[in-house]
Amino acid sequence: MSRTVRIDLAYDGTDFHGWQIQPGLRTVQGELSRLLAKLLGRGAVPTGAGRTDAGVHALGQVAHVAGLNTDEAQRVCRALSAMAPGDLDIRAVREVSPSFDARFSARWRHYAYRLGFRRDIFRRRAEWQVNRDLDRAALDAAAAHVPGERDFSSFCKTASLRENNRCDVRLCRFDWADDSAIFQIRADRFLHHMVRTLVGTLVEVGCGQREPADMIAILTARDRRAAGSMAPPHGLYLAAVGYPQQLDDPAYTDPGDDPGVER
Amino acid sequence: MSRTVRIDLAYDGTDFHGWQIQPGLRTVQGELSRLLAKLLGRGAVPTGAGRTDAGVHALGQVAHVAGLNTDEAQRVCRALSAMAPGDLDIRAVREVSPSFDARFSARWRHYAYRLGFRRDIFRRRAEWQVNRDLDRAALDAAAAHVPGERDFSSFCKTASLRENNRCDVRLCRFDWADDSAIFQIRADRFLHHMVRTLVGTLVEVGCGQREPADMIAILTARDRRAAGSMAPPHGLYLAAVGYPQQLDDPAYTDPGDDPGVER
Repeated sequence: MSRTVRIDLAYDGTDFHGWQIQPGLRTVQGELSRLLAKLLGRGAVPTGAGRTDAGVHALGQVAHVAGLNTDEAQRVCRALSAMAPGDLDIRAVREVSPSFDARFSARWRHYAYRLGFRRDIFRRRAEWQVNRDLDRAALDAAAAHVPGERDFSSFCKTASLRENNRCDVRLCRFDWADDSAIFQIRADRFLHHMVRTLVGTLVEVGCGQREPADMIAILTARDRRAAGSMAPPHGLYLAAVGYPQQLDDPAYTDPGDDPGVER
Repeated sequence: MSRTVRIDLAYDGTDFHGWQIQPGLRTVQGELSRLLAKLLGRGAVPTGAGRTDAGVHALGQVAHVAGLNTDEAQRVCRALSAMAPGDLDIRAVREVSPSFDARFSARWRHYAYRLGFRRDIFRRRAEWQVNRDLDRAALDAAAAHVPGERDFSSFCKTASLRENNRCDVRLCRFDWADDSAIFQIRADRFLHHMVRTLVGTLVEVGCGQREPADMIAILTARDRRAAGSMAPPHGLYLAAVGYPQQLDDPAYTDPGDDPGVER
């Protein structure tokens, strides 16, 4: 029987050229493939829930490896975590349903974006240091316009060729601390550069360059040029991904599941 | 009149080969000299209060540049801070008494050492992650044996040729948080590798390999072999340096001050 292993991981994106495997570059998927090849003596490429860009961090990235035999699945569960380099934390490795797909089974993804209002050299890789105070009330008001099922074309990288740019944003808010803030956003799906473009635009609101209500017009425009500039990658974290609970069970198979069909 | 400028700075030691200038290596003193040369059009090497080792951080390092003319001093005070690279934060630059010497005028130095009890990839450059709980009561008891004016030869790098290894430790304690601790130590002077050797030895107490009262025997031994192994550099911070207040005044000159005499 073909077995599927789920890998929960965190990484400091600083020294990775993003998630996706690329020849000659250090990527998270590439590192995991290298570790899996050592363990299995054959190639095995994991699939990730979110293909984070270069410099983006993860607290709760999820990946899976399918097509393992019983012995291989046990070896991966037992040994993978101890093999990880210093900037990659493999937090859990376990067998799940063969119907589990880290990318296509995900019901929601949660991103966090960290902002710093004061220069702090020890946090410069972990947050975007805007080095000024932001208008908190304006930012809370602007963020309140975001939740709902909407077309987010205005916040999508122009090169995107997706026809359907609708996302169901279920949570969008700022958590404030003295000298920093965390922007929290959860949705069923995200478009390319969507969180960073939202944050970049919101920071323009927080600096008084735009009004909170401008968010409505920007969303309605469905045009990338209506939104603001993109926030840098090093403030962004893939925080968590949600899946249907039954896929946790290695014995469960989705009734409609046919691995030969593109889902 | 020859003017002296005091520079207060913080740095992330990760990408520096320590404080002291070394040909072909990136050091803090080297970076400051490079910036000063740009500003002054001539060579000027700053003196630091503490010569931090490779990988050691600073929150409150102090340096001075002497022998500046009025115009040069003003230029340094105005422009130096904005020229600093991302991992070096020049927090204050101001003219002080010509008798001020960052190294020899210092009355005390304060170091902090950060310990982490859980793996956290985002803090791996900023603390020593011992990845286990320590016996807090034992560590508090062990640290209580340290303050006082004592011979610290047992905690000094073997190669040291100093004859006088007495230091007056005025404060030595742990500040505990949930998953981390900060070891705080203040003394009139420190021997080479003293803080890291103290921390390494204390962590052995915290792991149950030594008793708190062993600290007394180790101090009495005056032998480096009596102490434990040295803690890694990336948990250590030069936190603050104290000076006599009158040296803040550019118009003040120490009555006994003679720049030609080694102090």
